[in-house]
Amino acid sequence: MSFLYKSEPVRGARWAELFAERAPDIDFHIWPSIGDPRQVRYLAAWEPPQDIAQTFPNLELVFSVGAGVDQFDLSQIPEHIPVVRMIESGLVAGMVEYATLAVLAAHRDWLTYANQQRSGIWKPMPVRTANTRRVGVLGMGVLGKAVLEKLRDFGFQCAGWNRSERSLPGVECFTGEQGLADFLARTDILVCLLPLTDETRGILSQKLFRQLPQGAMLLNLGRGDHLVEEDLLVALDSNHLSTAILDVCSVEPLSEGHSFWHHPRIMLTPHIASMTQPDTSAEAVLDNLRRHREGLPLKGLVDRTRGY
Amino acid sequence: MSFLYKSEPVRGARWAELFAERAPDIDFHIWPSIGDPRQVRYLAAWEPPQDIAQTFPNLELVFSVGAGVDQFDLSQIPEHIPVVRMIESGLVAGMVEYATLAVLAAHRDWLTYANQQRSGIWKPMPVRTANTRRVGVLGMGVLGKAVLEKLRDFGFQCAGWNRSERSLPGVECFTGEQGLADFLARTDILVCLLPLTDETRGILSQKLFRQLPQGAMLLNLGRGDHLVEEDLLVALDSNHLSTAILDVCSVEPLSEGHSFWHHPRIMLTPHIASMTQPDTSAEAVLDNLRRHREGLPLKGLVDRTRGY
Repeated sequence: MSFLYKSEPVRGARWAELFAERAPDIDFHIWPSIGDPRQVRYLAAWEPPQDIAQTFPNLELVFSVGAGVDQFDLSQIPEHIPVVRMIESGLVAGMVEYATLAVLAAHRDWLTYANQQRSGIWKPMPVRTANTRRVGVLGMGVLGKAVLEKLRDFGFQCAGWNRSERSLPGVECFTGEQGLADFLARTDILVCLLPLTDETRGILSQKLFRQLPQGAMLLNLGRGDHLVEEDLLVALDSNHLSTAILDVCSVEPLSEGHSFWHHPRIMLTPHIASMTQPDTSAEAVLDNLRRHREGLPLKGLVDRTRGY
Repeated sequence: MSFLYKSEPVRGARWAELFAERAPDIDFHIWPSIGDPRQVRYLAAWEPPQDIAQTFPNLELVFSVGAGVDQFDLSQIPEHIPVVRMIESGLVAGMVEYATLAVLAAHRDWLTYANQQRSGIWKPMPVRTANTRRVGVLGMGVLGKAVLEKLRDFGFQCAGWNRSERSLPGVECFTGEQGLADFLARTDILVCLLPLTDETRGILSQKLFRQLPQGAMLLNLGRGDHLVEEDLLVALDSNHLSTAILDVCSVEPLSEGHSFWHHPRIMLTPHIASMTQPDTSAEAVLDNLRRHREGLPLKGLVDRTRGY
């Protein structure tokens, strides 16, 4: 019985150590070394190998090493094999850090001050208090909720939108199409933490931006394909949106010569908002393996009809 | 009996409203309108007027509108008149926001990513978890303690240094000269929130930097004169320090042509980390007026021998 890991090798080496300690009955293989393919019961990958059903006839369970499974072609994974997303404390903590950093940077005008510095301008602006700033998070999954809890504790007016109903103390919660319009109309700083699905692809578009108040700021910490990139440029250049902080792009790395590189009101980071951390993610995977063997519900089990 | 306000006029107008409601027996004047100088019992200022003892013979109490009194010439204020620093929730909240923003920006390599963006480089670096990063705050007054409490909740290894002994749950506390050496040796991100006094002027110098580990980062949110500016440039250019985030400078506005403007590893903001907020500061002043009249201890009373 073996576990095949196909992703970042440094983390893989750490998982191998932890598996040797905690699940010594499972052989641990790091791609491209796969051992006997008939022995592979478990697979963890960012992008699964081709033909996994044929190659690994006894596969029982597939793990995404990322928070989403949008990079998976789910049609290539037989229906009877459960697919699990990564829900682990290290990944959540990293996203809470980055979202807090980006919201505070937007709230405290850091892009403007960075531009002023480059131009040799010393020009203080009034400090707005957090309770006058309305932050809205699109997507209230594990990440969105954790981010909202942290921002709420700074005193921001916090709201969240989710496809299905959610509740969170001290956070105004919106659902569905009408809820989205109301949510956007009250949001000064919009944070996207949605899963990428056919429904959410291109959701950050001109149509959505128009529903935000003048001067709103966009923080995309989800996936590049949530955003219609040309629409963002139009919204920034017409001053309807004031600032964007983007951790993700449709094509990564961002292509040479793309307008995002040098736009003075865009801060860009190379998809580093959060990463699956070796120790805590191994814990999460080992916990799900135990649950699988004991017939308990899996944490982060993907609903194929929703796509996440 | 009157209260004379000599500082930023928009905030002054708001104080006037709140005083009219809450302390209608006190005439409220906004500088340069002073009314009858013999009626002035209370003065609030960033920089007090000249000859205050002669001009206002019945003065009983002086308020600084800032967190410090380093901008005051205390020798010009008669010994029998108490001087009070500004301790108010709005000022504390603003500093907690800015310090969190700056520490997270340092921790998550935002200056490097901003430089990479300008150069068209997409180069992710590993995400270090907060529990591997050692943050140290110089000065554990009201601001330093509030900042440490917030940072501790992100999981950073937090320590504080203070002239006199302090304690704070979950924070390693250091005191005195030997304590300072130990504190610096374990600090990756150093935040200065000291009061400016003869003892602390120039404390952020080559001597101190040498005691920090290689690659440490400096965040000066105190006063410009805490820092020996040339020593910072030497420390950055020799790569002993990796990054500096400065909200204050020795001369403000920073002079034209100063090396800080265009240094790629310095982020500079124009003394906006926090500001005294109109409503909450008026509350704090009214509370101290009540205490003064009732003979109770004042909050933020300056000890002239310490200078803060």
